[in-house]
Amino acid sequence: MSATIEAGDLVLIYLDEKRQFLVQTTLHLKISTDHGDLDLSTIIGKPFGFIGKTHLGKEFYCLKPSTADVMFKVKRMTTVIYPKDLGYLLLETAVGPGSQVIEVGTGSGVLTLALAKFVVPNGIVYSYERRREFIDNAKKNIERAGYTDRVQFHCSDVTHDGFVQKDVDAVFIDVAEPWEVIPKAVAALKGGHHVVSWSPNVEQVKRTVTVLKEHNFIRIRVSEILERELLVRQQGIRPRERGITFTAYLIRAQKVLENPHKE
Amino acid sequence: MSATIEAGDLVLIYLDEKRQFLVQTTLHLKISTDHGDLDLSTIIGKPFGFIGKTHLGKEFYCLKPSTADVMFKVKRMTTVIYPKDLGYLLLETAVGPGSQVIEVGTGSGVLTLALAKFVVPNGIVYSYERRREFIDNAKKNIERAGYTDRVQFHCSDVTHDGFVQKDVDAVFIDVAEPWEVIPKAVAALKGGHHVVSWSPNVEQVKRTVTVLKEHNFIRIRVSEILERELLVRQQGIRPRERGITFTAYLIRAQKVLENPHKE
Amino acid sequence: MSATIEAGDLVLIYLDEKRQFLVQTTLHLKISTDHGDLDLSTIIGKPFGFIGKTHLGKEFYCLKPSTADVMFKVKRMTTVIYPKDLGYLLLETAVGPGSQVIEVGTGSGVLTLALAKFVVPNGIVYSYERRREFIDNAKKNIERAGYTDRVQFHCSDVTHDGFVQKDVDAVFIDVAEPWEVIPKAVAALKGGHHVVSWSPNVEQVKRTVTVLKEHNFIRIRVSEILERELLVRQQGIRPRERGITFTAYLIRAQKVLENPHKE
Amino acid sequence: MSATIEAGDLVLIYLDEKRQFLVQTTLHLKISTDHGDLDLSTIIGKPFGFIGKTHLGKEFYCLKPSTADVMFKVKRMTTVIYPKDLGYLLLETAVGPGSQVIEVGTGSGVLTLALAKFVVPNGIVYSYERRREFIDNAKKNIERAGYTDRVQFHCSDVTHDGFVQKDVDAVFIDVAEPWEVIPKAVAALKGGHHVVSWSPNVEQVKRTVTVLKEHNFIRIRVSEILERELLVRQQGIRPRERGITFTAYLIRAQKVLENPHKE
Repeated sequence: MSATIEAGDLVLIYLDEKRQFLVQTTLHLKISTDHGDLDLSTIIGKPFGFIGKTHLGKEFYCLKPSTADVMFKVKRMTTVIYPKDLGYLLLETAVGPGSQVIEVGTGSGVLTLALAKFVVPNGIVYSYERRREFIDNAKKNIERAGYTDRVQFHCSDVTHDGFVQKDVDAVFIDVAEPWEVIPKAVAALKGGHHVVSWSPNVEQVKRTVTVLKEHNFIRIRVSEILERELLVRQQGIRPRERGITFTAYLIRAQKVLENPHKE
Repeated sequence: MSATIEAGDLVLIYLDEKRQFLVQTTLHLKISTDHGDLDLSTIIGKPFGFIGKTHLGKEFYCLKPSTADVMFKVKRMTTVIYPKDLGYLLLETAVGPGSQVIEVGTGSGVLTLALAKFVVPNGIVYSYERRREFIDNAKKNIERAGYTDRVQFHCSDVTHDGFVQKDVDAVFIDVAEPWEVIPKAVAALKGGHHVVSWSPNVEQVKRTVTVLKEHNFIRIRVSEILERELLVRQQGIRPRERGITFTAYLIRAQKVLENPHKE
Repeated sequence: MSATIEAGDLVLIYLDEKRQFLVQTTLHLKISTDHGDLDLSTIIGKPFGFIGKTHLGKEFYCLKPSTADVMFKVKRMTTVIYPKDLGYLLLETAVGPGSQVIEVGTGSGVLTLALAKFVVPNGIVYSYERRREFIDNAKKNIERAGYTDRVQFHCSDVTHDGFVQKDVDAVFIDVAEPWEVIPKAVAALKGGHHVVSWSPNVEQVKRTVTVLKEHNFIRIRVSEILERELLVRQQGIRPRERGITFTAYLIRAQKVLENPHKE
Repeated sequence: MSATIEAGDLVLIYLDEKRQFLVQTTLHLKISTDHGDLDLSTIIGKPFGFIGKTHLGKEFYCLKPSTADVMFKVKRMTTVIYPKDLGYLLLETAVGPGSQVIEVGTGSGVLTLALAKFVVPNGIVYSYERRREFIDNAKKNIERAGYTDRVQFHCSDVTHDGFVQKDVDAVFIDVAEPWEVIPKAVAALKGGHHVVSWSPNVEQVKRTVTVLKEHNFIRIRVSEILERELLVRQQGIRPRERGITFTAYLIRAQKVLENPHKE
């Protein structure tokens, strides 16, 4: 990987904390900000870390976007999973290079994109979604990030039709009623491997856990992840005073070959 | 990837919440528990998810270990980064398949191992450590997990000697005095890319941030990540009542080519 | 109030963080610790803040106990409300000097004692409990703290028998099934005033809230309170790493004269 | 205490979660809302809990304000302590009916008011403030709440002039530089009793703790209190998603008669 910005690269243009833009050098020709315009063609061939100036003389910085930056700045049609939650769930599964992963609920394709990145070189994300227009939007986000060959979309209702694949390494469920998907997920998932799901309401969690127990899942665990920023400023260090206090309950479980919850 | 347990595979043997063992099928012949012994040779060739019995008749489950399981259950000589923190930091950088990553402070090799997994197929983790015996232990942990060809160890004092590499994609600093490493890190890191560090004490954070500002770093941010389990039981749902309330402050920053903090 | 320790005073004897004893100077003659014995008669007549020595020469400090100290160190037969939770609930009601307060579930009398303190000089806590032996123990705790004339105990089952009082200023419910008490509480409570309750399980909260809505309560709110210590030490400042992560959900609501949740 | 609303009573007029008004029946003649006007003279003589209607037919509820309501809804000239923090600190001291309490930094008089309530019948709050206009505003807030005879104001700079009182039961410090007040506080406070202070920045905490150690204080502890609402709704139960994530570090310590931190 070169450290030079090339045509097509995703770049985080950073003026200050309130002015950050994720751009793709071939798609955007010019960005207009209240601190002046900046011509993206001028940064091609420059190294990452380059400091440019807007036509009003304000400095901007050409930064490498993190995975979280790419996740947060795609075109969204739905609420999306937070990086703090996905980072946790990723490590709570065995997903990595080469993994075959099913995702239920493509949504904006944010999770699709992040999973696709981590299954390179030869893994695949099978992404299921009922609504065709969501797949169309997600495809653009995936293409922009360069992971088109790592994703297969399926426009279908898995609650009724189930999954085409067998023996996948993980199933990520991001729909409002995860319990309707689990009976199908159990057939598609390798033994001993992970299903993950997340929901904001306690009632959803309860129902999901109940159905997981009915379908041979074990080591069922539920957590929430909280992030709090520490502000390190000249005038003093202290935690940020307002922010996100909850996103979702994160559920994960592992399939075994017979039901361990019998009595 | 097969779903059948083969010789050399890491397997999580799960009896119940208090009896979980990460084993490697060639290394361990037998596990003795207070619920009976289990012979590991009997699970080779079985599918993941298999349910066996100890010689006392207690069922055990052969589960696929998550990345977090592998991190938590290596032989440790030091405190190690928590999965909740690493998952967050991983997504806060651009690290992924193919990345060249420097790690300072091999310690027990837990972070080394997790980074190595995510830079497969052709990335490399350059792991620096002053103490030879720590490298020796970490090598065993890396070998056991199967990532030997993704890691290069350097036994040296980077504070004085700096790094051999140039243009790496990220630098992960896990030492008590990160500020001593940063002046060298800036030379080894690609422009626009990420340095990350974590420390338990506020004074360490303050000093690290100060030195980051002196060495051309921008978008410096500090956070803490909290995890709380939600217990979903027959008798009622509620958060866990005791647990970990703090691990470390997580710092990340990006290098630019000139110092943006001049005045 | 004198600053001199008198016979009968509650004193917090503090040797160090792990050796703290709440004593009453007439009741305890001698305390034996692994750092030596101390004779309580020697501190009578001394000022609060006095520094004494055990027979082995270890210093001890005679401190004024806080309300929280007194709450935490009574003889307990049950789990008790935490000061962090009671402090919050106290301010979320109008309870203060002169208030008439009903408490349901005397338990160990810890809440009784704290409420009694804050209704001095002429308020009363009416404390209901089904189990005679709990009242007997609580009476001793109340007497020791000096609030006997601020408390009236009732040994009865309020679910069936209801309350003797009318027009009290607040009702504090500390039983496992608060929803069984609410229909009776509504008759005993002044209009516009507060009922409070706390429960560890989400299902309990849901049921309590449902019954509150059925019985003319409005402004129903549920919160949890978390406390985290910041350790300020020579070697660095940081939050405590392990501790209490949950105690209870705190519910409060106010009665109105007709049901506002009709239709 | 009567349950009937009388002239001069503080009443919380509640239309819905977004429309709540703390009023005093003699001061406000009419409230205008976007749901219609309401004439306060019509509620005098009605019981608390009364349900009235605006001239547009919207129902409003006449509720008893909690101590927290009164604290939050005074006329403020400064940031004020949160009820969650004060409730905790109140129980971490011995303050109650009859206490003599010094407050440094009257500010808007919110803390003054809350302390005054809890020292009734014969306690006193001695409130120190340098800025005359703050005392003038605070006096109105205290008078409105009916605690004028429980508060003595001192317009002076305690850093230089110290305190008039001796042997008070507690000192509450709410200024930006608590460490400048502590050397004077030690002289005014009873032995064994509590000083409390709160600050948002870690540096302030460190300096305060250092000075407390130099002035014979022991059992120095620092905590933060977090509150999170649980939303109990028809469509599901879950924690509130955005809110306050930090207010202040709460410090408390107790004075002893000689310095225990010598050498």
